[in-house]
Amino acid sequence: MSSTGRLIDLRSDTLTAPTDAMRKAMAEAEVGDDVYGEDPTVNKMQSLAADLCGMEDALFVSTGTMGNLLCVLGHCFERGSEVMLGNSSHLYRREQGGPAQWGGVNMNPLPNRKDGTFSLDDVRSKFHNGKDFHETKTSLIAIENTMNGRIVPMNFIKELRQLANELNVPIHMDGARLFNAAVGLNVPVSSITQYVDSVSICLSKSLGAPVGSVIVGSKPFIARTRRIRKALGGAMRQSGVIAAAGILALTDMVKRLHIDHENAKTFAKGIIQYYPNYVNLNMDETETNMVWFDVNTKLPTHDGRNSAQEFCYRMANRYNDDDVVVKMFGFFGVSIRCVFYNGVSQADVKLALEKFHSVMKAWISESNVS
Amino acid sequence: MSSTGRLIDLRSDTLTAPTDAMRKAMAEAEVGDDVYGEDPTVNKMQSLAADLCGMEDALFVSTGTMGNLLCVLGHCFERGSEVMLGNSSHLYRREQGGPAQWGGVNMNPLPNRKDGTFSLDDVRSKFHNGKDFHETKTSLIAIENTMNGRIVPMNFIKELRQLANELNVPIHMDGARLFNAAVGLNVPVSSITQYVDSVSICLSKSLGAPVGSVIVGSKPFIARTRRIRKALGGAMRQSGVIAAAGILALTDMVKRLHIDHENAKTFAKGIIQYYPNYVNLNMDETETNMVWFDVNTKLPTHDGRNSAQEFCYRMANRYNDDDVVVKMFGFFGVSIRCVFYNGVSQADVKLALEKFHSVMKAWISESNVS
Amino acid sequence: MSSTGRLIDLRSDTLTAPTDAMRKAMAEAEVGDDVYGEDPTVNKMQSLAADLCGMEDALFVSTGTMGNLLCVLGHCFERGSEVMLGNSSHLYRREQGGPAQWGGVNMNPLPNRKDGTFSLDDVRSKFHNGKDFHETKTSLIAIENTMNGRIVPMNFIKELRQLANELNVPIHMDGARLFNAAVGLNVPVSSITQYVDSVSICLSKSLGAPVGSVIVGSKPFIARTRRIRKALGGAMRQSGVIAAAGILALTDMVKRLHIDHENAKTFAKGIIQYYPNYVNLNMDETETNMVWFDVNTKLPTHDGRNSAQEFCYRMANRYNDDDVVVKMFGFFGVSIRCVFYNGVSQADVKLALEKFHSVMKAWISESNVS
Amino acid sequence: MSSTGRLIDLRSDTLTAPTDAMRKAMAEAEVGDDVYGEDPTVNKMQSLAADLCGMEDALFVSTGTMGNLLCVLGHCFERGSEVMLGNSSHLYRREQGGPAQWGGVNMNPLPNRKDGTFSLDDVRSKFHNGKDFHETKTSLIAIENTMNGRIVPMNFIKELRQLANELNVPIHMDGARLFNAAVGLNVPVSSITQYVDSVSICLSKSLGAPVGSVIVGSKPFIARTRRIRKALGGAMRQSGVIAAAGILALTDMVKRLHIDHENAKTFAKGIIQYYPNYVNLNMDETETNMVWFDVNTKLPTHDGRNSAQEFCYRMANRYNDDDVVVKMFGFFGVSIRCVFYNGVSQADVKLALEKFHSVMKAWISESNVS
Repeated sequence: MSSTGRLIDLRSDTLTAPTDAMRKAMAEAEVGDDVYGEDPTVNKMQSLAADLCGMEDALFVSTGTMGNLLCVLGHCFERGSEVMLGNSSHLYRREQGGPAQWGGVNMNPLPNRKDGTFSLDDVRSKFHNGKDFHETKTSLIAIENTMNGRIVPMNFIKELRQLANELNVPIHMDGARLFNAAVGLNVPVSSITQYVDSVSICLSKSLGAPVGSVIVGSKPFIARTRRIRKALGGAMRQSGVIAAAGILALTDMVKRLHIDHENAKTFAKGIIQYYPNYVNLNMDETETNMVWFDVNTKLPTHDGRNSAQEFCYRMANRYNDDDVVVKMFGFFGVSIRCVFYNGVSQADVKLALEKFHSVMKAWISESNVS
Repeated sequence: MSSTGRLIDLRSDTLTAPTDAMRKAMAEAEVGDDVYGEDPTVNKMQSLAADLCGMEDALFVSTGTMGNLLCVLGHCFERGSEVMLGNSSHLYRREQGGPAQWGGVNMNPLPNRKDGTFSLDDVRSKFHNGKDFHETKTSLIAIENTMNGRIVPMNFIKELRQLANELNVPIHMDGARLFNAAVGLNVPVSSITQYVDSVSICLSKSLGAPVGSVIVGSKPFIARTRRIRKALGGAMRQSGVIAAAGILALTDMVKRLHIDHENAKTFAKGIIQYYPNYVNLNMDETETNMVWFDVNTKLPTHDGRNSAQEFCYRMANRYNDDDVVVKMFGFFGVSIRCVFYNGVSQADVKLALEKFHSVMKAWISESNVS
Repeated sequence: MSSTGRLIDLRSDTLTAPTDAMRKAMAEAEVGDDVYGEDPTVNKMQSLAADLCGMEDALFVSTGTMGNLLCVLGHCFERGSEVMLGNSSHLYRREQGGPAQWGGVNMNPLPNRKDGTFSLDDVRSKFHNGKDFHETKTSLIAIENTMNGRIVPMNFIKELRQLANELNVPIHMDGARLFNAAVGLNVPVSSITQYVDSVSICLSKSLGAPVGSVIVGSKPFIARTRRIRKALGGAMRQSGVIAAAGILALTDMVKRLHIDHENAKTFAKGIIQYYPNYVNLNMDETETNMVWFDVNTKLPTHDGRNSAQEFCYRMANRYNDDDVVVKMFGFFGVSIRCVFYNGVSQADVKLALEKFHSVMKAWISESNVS
Repeated sequence: MSSTGRLIDLRSDTLTAPTDAMRKAMAEAEVGDDVYGEDPTVNKMQSLAADLCGMEDALFVSTGTMGNLLCVLGHCFERGSEVMLGNSSHLYRREQGGPAQWGGVNMNPLPNRKDGTFSLDDVRSKFHNGKDFHETKTSLIAIENTMNGRIVPMNFIKELRQLANELNVPIHMDGARLFNAAVGLNVPVSSITQYVDSVSICLSKSLGAPVGSVIVGSKPFIARTRRIRKALGGAMRQSGVIAAAGILALTDMVKRLHIDHENAKTFAKGIIQYYPNYVNLNMDETETNMVWFDVNTKLPTHDGRNSAQEFCYRMANRYNDDDVVVKMFGFFGVSIRCVFYNGVSQADVKLALEKFHSVMKAWISESNVS
């Protein structure tokens, strides 16, 4: 990176660095030994999270993966249990199969739609009530909100709740980016979480804390997960130092999430405005802090890269003698994901769009030549 | 059942009772303690199975489910492993999620086609090489042959082998009814098993033994599964008494499998001949000892039964004052499965068709009235 | 083995071959598919076992190891559970750590006394009530009866029951040789099992059946283990063929167990009578069908064998030009175990004692020379 | 607590609050996303830990329990494995049986001596080489240093290493307080760790960091544990904020550990000096930052408390109108543990001794009266 250049990293909102206010809060945090339940800052953060979700209790955990794992294990305590979940979900695809690996809990994946929903008919037909001993027992249904930046429609959540009541099964929500959904819908988080039995919320993605997630649920459920957390080695000591940042994440940082959503929309509009024939982007799907689009597969690629890789390569290199490099992630050979968060300013969005403009211009011209 | 009537049970070939020859062999079996490897009849049966499959070694197990479980655990010995398999397979749907429940091994289901195959592109795109720690590692690919009576095409097996070699992953074949495939193709079993690394063969389904399965593989693989079998409580003592029946299953009973296949074809032809508008059956799919067909959903049902249940109910009751009752299993509300095996004679097939004729005649007439 | 010689195998009563009556019963057994609960012979054997133990229900399993595993998993269904048990027990030492390996259940071993008991103070002080999340929760106490041929004193069992009630924890009894205890005490089995919540009984040790064990308990407990059995691959099909032998094991064979006990006593007396200075044997400890004694470690050994191995080697070889060979197991370098069962007659006992006499005479003389 | 009083908390060094320097370092830490390996502060701390131990690589983890769990799972990757360890160790007694609960790894406990050693004869006789399928396989031996404040003798570690080499099994050291051992012996840590294959070091006990442990080992071993850490949910994001404190823990804090040891000795001397007949304390066992002693069980207790509880109760209350309260932990009804760390000054030691003096005086006088 040249000293005069600018790196704009749109790979993930996990990259958010703690704010100055967070650093200050961490340095000044009042702490105690949380294994004994004696850390006041942790306790305060947990109370805050529970209140925001309208639930009884909460538990601070090291990561979102641990949060989801604890919730699955806390709900699925019968031998031969399974969790039913969407096949695009992070829990199904990106957490190394933890429920099965550690807790013997199978996963029953249903085809996910882009908005995070799945078919309720599928839920009904693939549900296992535990009476046939050839089958696992469906002890939990898990959904993710937002999923890939899409807000799961409230109607779906309500109907799933009704069906879950009928089937007598709890619902867990992987709310790694739940506050983005609430801000996108302009509702309090509790108006979403009222329909589920447990939630895991990531403090270190769009909310910007350096470390940690928090899970929320009923008192007996949290008591059960607290015991499991200890066994997994997740019970930290003076963790008030990081929970202090979590308190700011759940308060101040929520207030600024709308900025990321606006930046995402601005970027998305810029993308489709200039090169409508070369990118495929649906503005309706740009609901929160992520922008997804496909690049035209007819543009030339090099060195064995697929179209998505070629595009990312060009964006991430000072290929056109400009001073800006932009990092993005490509998926499935053709799709590009850009994530907007506290570390990406309005000015960065403008720079990134200029970079996009210059990359596409060069790429298309190359295409015309050949 | 009236003393003059006849029960024809087409629910499953797991229902086969041992033959007189098997009972005699069991009564006369030379035995020893198989935990010490000292049962000559078990050893003979295992050698026979290994030879038939062209592999090094074999192991007698209590059931097909244990056979599959041992093979998955024997191949997937790294933490964070998964087995990739078809989503219609018995291992995925009907073995209570044993690999995950007991061994922490996740399952990665691919959409199955009716003939037991799945897309090799899916294999490639959903394969996890273990380098990304967000993902499980694909340590095994499992296929089932026959699947629901269908013979898995040899071309698929060969191509899957090539791909597996490229991906450096072993293949397990759930060959619960593998001999039906071999007889259907008129080839030795080894011409199929040469493409896979392990096989489990059920002795107590179409092969008619009362108890047991046998798994087959390389010497080190079988040594590994022998140790796992002990831990699961599957190492029996004088099991020569049941292995004796297994020897006949693998020899004499194989020679008569073609009769079941002929009976299945005769039954299938009879079904479509009389009521082509009321049943949906594809003769090409009647390859071995199973007949599948759909019943017309417009025919009237009673007492909350779906169409498949209504049909099975009528076949299983002396509804029309006849003397014959036929048991079948219905699936998915509309599909009927009939399985032909040693306990079902040519005469039974004729009786079952007559019952079918009379049931359909009455059912259709009821339909016309209403 | 010379054609004129005789092999007397005292290694274990697992070596019992099925009787002619058992073979006949197996050949003639009425069978059905036990996965559907339709095998009348299995059902009959299970009812018989439940009745004998004065409990509600029973389940046929492949092996004693599976029986114990099912019982531990059936009782320990909470995450973070443990089973407290004696450190000499088969379950602790000889079942490859199945409870932890498959079910995540820790074992909490207490020092065993020779008679199978342990200190009730130890139970109390090492019991974990599950309130401290640093610890596993004691969800089961397991005892073994007989243990190494010793009958666990009734007083201990009664007092353990009282303590277990106070601690609110169930008791499992590994009754692999429980009928030997009952016969030794001259009481019905139910007078022992009344103090425990589940029992596993081995049909293929002293009771002589070729294959199988049966577990006994309450209806809900057995329902739970039935589901676990299916997942482990222990649900066999026409297993009436082996359960038929199990019925005879639980009836006719029990009636002859006292013969084995008499043979054991005769053998033990013979041992100490002739060479009191060279073997150490406590007649009071010869309570059922096992004889344990130590050999004098001052007698010379060869080829790297320890004293126990040297003794077994001499007994198992036609070292002195006699026609009889006797197999025994040595343990801990110095101890010898001999087990008496249906395959060992009074005449065999006499022959074995003669062999012992001749082996010791030669061995001692060798000692004197050197 | 009166505003004028002083709370001296000797319960555990887990209670250490971060120093001002640590808070500053945390606030100023350069961070990145450690899931991508991009956090420079984490990387620096890990390099430092590896260097100090003379090993190749290291991994930051949330807690000591997670560190031990990862090391056991990383070494014991074969099915049916066990870890052999001392029966007083934290891993055996205080980590909720994690190895079995999550990874199916059994524990094989050996009787611990007070100095953390166990009998090498026991290691040899209870070692399972994996060839007998009745047994688990010993895949790891684990020791703890310091154990309850005692330094494990170097001779033992060297001899265990030789034996482990002979048995071909790795050694893990739970070095939660390893730096106390090194400081106590006045040697570099690497002179101890050279004899083991992996170490876990707690940064948040005597070293004073608020959160975290670090495990150290070979490159392939750490790569394996890195993957397991992800699956357990232990891979944090901008964890440089806490690793920054860890760097100071491994450097500045080590330099002051000798102060805690001196304080412990001062306190111990004071204890035995005044009331030699009422406490039992062995100065030789006060090697690092812990003081253990037994209280006289003849002194009167109240309200159902045992002697240890009575003593702690009196120390922790303003029972004698003084201004100081001292918290300690009692164990086994009679033993008292006091731990000295950065939060306990020389002045506190003096105050605590005075409190002890006044408590004992009152207690003994009460005794004389009755």
